[in-house]
Amino acid sequence: MQMKKLVVIGVGLIGGSLALDLKRAGAVTQVVGVGRSWDNLERALQLGVIDHATQSAAEAVVDADIVLLATPVGQMAAILQQIAPHLAPHTIITDAGSTKSDVCALMQQYLPHHLARCVPAHPIAGSDLSGASAARYGLYQNRNVVLAPFAETDASALAEIHAMWQITGAHLLQMTASEHDAVFAAVSHLPHLLAFAYVDMVAQKDNAERCLALAASGFRDFTRIAGSHPEMWRDISLANRDALLADLHRYQAALTSLTHALENCDGAALVAQFERARHVRTQWEHQRR
Amino acid sequence: MQMKKLVVIGVGLIGGSLALDLKRAGAVTQVVGVGRSWDNLERALQLGVIDHATQSAAEAVVDADIVLLATPVGQMAAILQQIAPHLAPHTIITDAGSTKSDVCALMQQYLPHHLARCVPAHPIAGSDLSGASAARYGLYQNRNVVLAPFAETDASALAEIHAMWQITGAHLLQMTASEHDAVFAAVSHLPHLLAFAYVDMVAQKDNAERCLALAASGFRDFTRIAGSHPEMWRDISLANRDALLADLHRYQAALTSLTHALENCDGAALVAQFERARHVRTQWEHQRR
Repeated sequence: MQMKKLVVIGVGLIGGSLALDLKRAGAVTQVVGVGRSWDNLERALQLGVIDHATQSAAEAVVDADIVLLATPVGQMAAILQQIAPHLAPHTIITDAGSTKSDVCALMQQYLPHHLARCVPAHPIAGSDLSGASAARYGLYQNRNVVLAPFAETDASALAEIHAMWQITGAHLLQMTASEHDAVFAAVSHLPHLLAFAYVDMVAQKDNAERCLALAASGFRDFTRIAGSHPEMWRDISLANRDALLADLHRYQAALTSLTHALENCDGAALVAQFERARHVRTQWEHQRR
Repeated sequence: MQMKKLVVIGVGLIGGSLALDLKRAGAVTQVVGVGRSWDNLERALQLGVIDHATQSAAEAVVDADIVLLATPVGQMAAILQQIAPHLAPHTIITDAGSTKSDVCALMQQYLPHHLARCVPAHPIAGSDLSGASAARYGLYQNRNVVLAPFAETDASALAEIHAMWQITGAHLLQMTASEHDAVFAAVSHLPHLLAFAYVDMVAQKDNAERCLALAASGFRDFTRIAGSHPEMWRDISLANRDALLADLHRYQAALTSLTHALENCDGAALVAQFERARHVRTQWEHQRR
């Protein structure tokens, strides 16, 4: 692929790393970075992540080939509203949000006549790092990127976004927004909620101080995601509320039956569940390599 | 400290690493390894983890200064029964089990006249690795070791075990067996159960294959402990049943209130809980460094 102008709105780990890979591959002539913080935009310029910087999304998107929304989902409504009047007919809009049904709804609301050029997407490469200085080459090598096009999305727009991500070495998948959200409720959003709730529960125990002093590597790994950004996870939880509630209920049912097994000293039931889980976890680890 | 004979029953990561450190420090003249697998004992001899090997615990403990039970807790009843008639009055018995109330009960049952020389203990250095080849120098450097002596334990036995672990660079703490078990129910045993139940729940979903294909680093860390040994965790769960059930109920109550917040789209309640958890988790990470 060869594009003249890529606009990255939100120049952090996700948008910045994509820009770096595309620039290195010579796939883009000019990357324009848009953001609210001048400090961050200046760092992005210095690091060669972007070629031009502006705080005006409306101005930036004029004549763009592709516009990537790489901000938290909570900021996207305002951005879509700002850019809508300034989009050329050929400009492709894509995003990197962790939930898709809500982003799709926003695009339908603010870009109802532009859906043929909208390709909602989710590159799976989150991390605790943020800001332009977190951007790095090769972030997406062997990572998954989910594309969740509309029925209205035209084949050429989908192919362009597909080709763009392929340059980074990512593995591409396509599914509907609701399929996407059901999957991520289970493998990402639920564990975050479980980890937040767990740490909060331990912290409220009478012996919390002693507990934390003796917590070791099992605790460390299990709770790592409880260090994630509270507002971002509130937004994700609310955006993916239905799928998340379904999985929360499923999980509580699983805990209730585990509790019964323990109350009844049913060692066979415990070991059967632990064995099934270990089998799945071990296979999963294996297949990742 | 200077001892002539240390007997390590169960020569794996825990017992083997202690033996290596004590030998390097010149704190022990002879380490005798006891185990059920000759292959493992031969590897331990080759690696210099032990000086002599035998499959007979009864024979090994004769004239020992210290006997360390480093097997799974499930094997300890049989071992205590075997060694009881062969213990010299001065021989100190200690262990490395992850639960303490049950080990204390076993010592009270099988060594009722030897409690003055019993020092139940728990070095916090678990790992997925096992066998003599997992043993390594420095494993306990800056790790916690909990000593949970009986009221009957004499001061000299306690001091000896304290001195032994200090050689490894470990940080020593003393508490009662039930205090210990309450702490580890919260920071170790509960997370294991939560992780097992979570992986098992995901694996039973209709879209399980797609879920596992898209699970990323958050899932990886959150579920690492679900790869742990099923029988060992059945034993730990049953041994620490009361404390674990109390924490399971506490956790389910926390999940219920989280579910209500989500059902009511109560973003403020969600963010407050996530914020508290992140604060505690971040501080914890900081203090570990």
